[in-house]
Amino acid sequence: MKIALCQINPTIGDFDGNCARIESAAREAKSRGAELGLFSEMCVMGYPARDLLEKPAFLDAHDRAIERLRESLANVLPVIVGGVKRRNSHVGKPLHNSCIFLAGGKVIAIGDKCLLPTYDVFDEDRYFTEADAPTLVEFSGRKIGLTICEDCWNDKDFWIDRIYRTDPIDTLVAHGAEIIVNLSASPYHIGKHEIKTRMLGALAKKHRRPLLYANQVGGNDDLIFDGRSLAFDAEGRLLATGPGFEEGVVIVDAFAKAPYVTTIGEELERTGITLSPDADLIDVMNADMELSEREGPVIEPVDTELEEVHRALVLGTRDYARKCGFKTAVLGLSGGIDSALVAAIAAEAFGPANVTGVAMPSRYNAEQSLIDARESAARLGINFHVIPIEAIVGAFNTELAPVFAGRKPDVAEENIQARIRGVLMMALSNKFGHLLLTTGNKSELATGYCTLYGDMCGGLAVISDLYKTMVYSLSRHLNAIKPANPPIPISSIEKAPTAELRANQKDQDSLPPYDLLDTILKRVIEKRESAEDLIAKGYDASTVKRVLRLIDISEYKRRQAAPGLKVTTKAFGTGRRIPIAQKIP
Amino acid sequence: MKIALCQINPTIGDFDGNCARIESAAREAKSRGAELGLFSEMCVMGYPARDLLEKPAFLDAHDRAIERLRESLANVLPVIVGGVKRRNSHVGKPLHNSCIFLAGGKVIAIGDKCLLPTYDVFDEDRYFTEADAPTLVEFSGRKIGLTICEDCWNDKDFWIDRIYRTDPIDTLVAHGAEIIVNLSASPYHIGKHEIKTRMLGALAKKHRRPLLYANQVGGNDDLIFDGRSLAFDAEGRLLATGPGFEEGVVIVDAFAKAPYVTTIGEELERTGITLSPDADLIDVMNADMELSEREGPVIEPVDTELEEVHRALVLGTRDYARKCGFKTAVLGLSGGIDSALVAAIAAEAFGPANVTGVAMPSRYNAEQSLIDARESAARLGINFHVIPIEAIVGAFNTELAPVFAGRKPDVAEENIQARIRGVLMMALSNKFGHLLLTTGNKSELATGYCTLYGDMCGGLAVISDLYKTMVYSLSRHLNAIKPANPPIPISSIEKAPTAELRANQKDQDSLPPYDLLDTILKRVIEKRESAEDLIAKGYDASTVKRVLRLIDISEYKRRQAAPGLKVTTKAFGTGRRIPIAQKIP
Repeated sequence: MKIALCQINPTIGDFDGNCARIESAAREAKSRGAELGLFSEMCVMGYPARDLLEKPAFLDAHDRAIERLRESLANVLPVIVGGVKRRNSHVGKPLHNSCIFLAGGKVIAIGDKCLLPTYDVFDEDRYFTEADAPTLVEFSGRKIGLTICEDCWNDKDFWIDRIYRTDPIDTLVAHGAEIIVNLSASPYHIGKHEIKTRMLGALAKKHRRPLLYANQVGGNDDLIFDGRSLAFDAEGRLLATGPGFEEGVVIVDAFAKAPYVTTIGEELERTGITLSPDADLIDVMNADMELSEREGPVIEPVDTELEEVHRALVLGTRDYARKCGFKTAVLGLSGGIDSALVAAIAAEAFGPANVTGVAMPSRYNAEQSLIDARESAARLGINFHVIPIEAIVGAFNTELAPVFAGRKPDVAEENIQARIRGVLMMALSNKFGHLLLTTGNKSELATGYCTLYGDMCGGLAVISDLYKTMVYSLSRHLNAIKPANPPIPISSIEKAPTAELRANQKDQDSLPPYDLLDTILKRVIEKRESAEDLIAKGYDASTVKRVLRLIDISEYKRRQAAPGLKVTTKAFGTGRRIPIAQKIP
Repeated sequence: MKIALCQINPTIGDFDGNCARIESAAREAKSRGAELGLFSEMCVMGYPARDLLEKPAFLDAHDRAIERLRESLANVLPVIVGGVKRRNSHVGKPLHNSCIFLAGGKVIAIGDKCLLPTYDVFDEDRYFTEADAPTLVEFSGRKIGLTICEDCWNDKDFWIDRIYRTDPIDTLVAHGAEIIVNLSASPYHIGKHEIKTRMLGALAKKHRRPLLYANQVGGNDDLIFDGRSLAFDAEGRLLATGPGFEEGVVIVDAFAKAPYVTTIGEELERTGITLSPDADLIDVMNADMELSEREGPVIEPVDTELEEVHRALVLGTRDYARKCGFKTAVLGLSGGIDSALVAAIAAEAFGPANVTGVAMPSRYNAEQSLIDARESAARLGINFHVIPIEAIVGAFNTELAPVFAGRKPDVAEENIQARIRGVLMMALSNKFGHLLLTTGNKSELATGYCTLYGDMCGGLAVISDLYKTMVYSLSRHLNAIKPANPPIPISSIEKAPTAELRANQKDQDSLPPYDLLDTILKRVIEKRESAEDLIAKGYDASTVKRVLRLIDISEYKRRQAAPGLKVTTKAFGTGRRIPIAQKIP
């Protein structure tokens, strides 16, 4: 049975556009010999639609889209597409997260999701009722088990702890499923693809069933879906992989045997990698961190991971802009490494001619900063302006003098400079319709080393989930892959980082060294370690307490931050919900 | 059996402070003859702790607090307090939302919540596993049924549709419960107390059991808890009510008969009010809207409701500041009604001497605006500054001239003015440690008639859940209850509203009349009606489509808005989750 794994990039609520993409992929699959098209979770409406699912008119549009596909694909290809199903019962939530099997102009089966993720960025219990049981459907003489995303993330032999109730894969196999298909909208983070490959391979091998997994691709606000659909044979060997970070159709002979010698299970044994035996439901997504820690330093991703991050950020930026209707971008170019990196990503996402970098020097900016900013723009071929802020600073100081009389300069004056730059950037955004890109990194956002309504202004925070050490790694990586014309100025990489908001200011005067800071941040934010845990592991007590306090007291800034592209297991944003008003230890 | 309903105002994570409040209330209850103290849901840690519940160290502190109370109250009073229970099972979430019954130095029972709200501002499925069954405990010869908040919101005879699985109250009564107690953290919105009173009274009457309900009081970020605990006798008659919007201990003779003649059931019959038969789970919280619509216009709350809103906003503002460590506030005073109202609320919340109003006139501000701003400050007795922005506008224009060459003035120049004011306000906030209060209303925030990083700057949005028509009603109400010194200038109420960002600008040049706009907004935001629904009801099609489009395209501004105090069934903020990148019809 030839099945097409169809990775499309839907826009949330764009039912016509999404249907057109589904139809186009189905036609391509047919022309390449497929007998069945497997699409991703919720592909008809885009994932995650969030509270749009509570709008009756949105659900009506969904139902019309399914009708359209039922008819338009009747003579093209049988397909399984992701959508929702309204429930008749008044007990529980009004919808199921479902896959709809369309063949020959008919709905031949609907399978509902059994396991609903409600953690991190996922809120599925908010909208859906879980299925009582998974659905088995006979097609072309084969019994196909229909599952959706999380349904396949519950293998107690892989995760060690069982994490939900009865496992839907166990149920399907017990009832005679000959093959498992899985429709997913599984957002990217560093290392997840490796985990997913091992996990799904182990699942196929355990049940001795081929497993086909089709994943969404594309950016939606903070989330980036990486595609990279997967197919395994009944021995858990990899049959095929979909392209990463782009749309694609992959044809798989579902009951073929893979040519690979090594199985996933053997690979696991060879590397000696196992998952943490004390993982609980919330820690599931962190499992890959255990992995990466055994393979190298805590923070530094390996080369292939950096290239993943690179592609993820370009896709996330491009899609956010496209889906919001922006064709051009603007950003402040300080000469520092953060804005140089964001400019490089923007140049790829928008095309250099559509990006404008602006240097906004004050008296505290070194001459080298302007040189580096100009070089950054020149290397990328983006537009470049210089708008000095000294006269505007003077105008503010004059008007504030009567109110500030008798007070010494402090952080108020520093922030005025950052906020003037924010006003200027937004003025360009408003005047020319540019998307303003924010250039802050995760280490800054974590410690509050950033100015709300200043450098935090912007529609999208491109690198807000990259620790500063990762900003360095990724910048070096971008230079390494383009040795003829490295996009990041060497000086931006090599000089000591500074906010340049007062004389002789250096980041490391206010913060611990970034290597140390980032290790602490990662342990606290992603692993939920406490001050006590870290001190017990030998970290300096006063440093640890200072960093934790900075994280806690900066919550109010992050609440008003721009959406930031998620690339780690725990980003600031929709997947992290901390009260602002709380007792700070 | 004399039971004390104990309403305390916890701070999230302040285990020591919360324990001290619990101990103090328990001692007071004991001294006034109580045999048992009933506290609110999660009172030991404060509700909602959100992702702090994922921190092991936070849970350890919770366990120590329970230990402290077990010992400290051993010889004071038996109490039922709200907290969490760790689960041994690896299936499902690691915690229960529980109530802990402490008596004589022992934990004599723990009851777990059966029904977990996961809608609007609630995310309980994110953290908790539901109890298999409710807990019955024998105390002082009586069988007490232990329930937590949502457990009592499932009566199919009241809500008509059954909304969860097996009803925990049915189960408790079937197993011999003689009385039902309920620990709640039920956030305030307009009209909810009336619904709650009717619902709980009907529940008591139906089951012929006394029902005692203890609710949290206090503000936590966007949520305001109103207290107003309730006790009903076995006929559903009201026995006692706790104070509104303040802490308090109310002693109830639990098996007494209420002196009231009218039962809740009779009252329901008398008024002819029933709840919508097509209510579903998500609509539950909207039920009161049906009620208020039958009693008057859609938007205008009745007088007692305005006083509720008034008290709610003062409490919400005061608690946000106190729990975040602010003692003083600053806000922009434009002379308009929004900032005049926020100033009045701030004067009550902080004391007039701790509030600073600042007028920031430009060339586009009418003379009358400054007069009104000054009068507003004078009426309230708050501090007042004038900081003209014209010279700063000039400095920006000069620096932007080369970049803007050949472009006509547009919204970019308007926003620069609003953003200069934002920078000035934040400068005062940074310099003096004032909390900056945002003064925008819900109608503005809905339609995007506000400037991101401009008038939207601030730590707390005091009236961001008040439609403009409610801003007028509440302002008139504040003047009516203080006839000797009305806090809101008459001119601010009577003149046509304007943003004063260009010559002769009036809100109504850009927006439909507020009466009409607010009715549309309420229907769309709170009732999820579509353009088609509204047009079918006779609203002008082009107006409806324009308003809906404004709502959709302003999502990005609201994502970066300050937390705003929730007073309606659906506020912008944590309870409304809409993607930014989506297809706008």
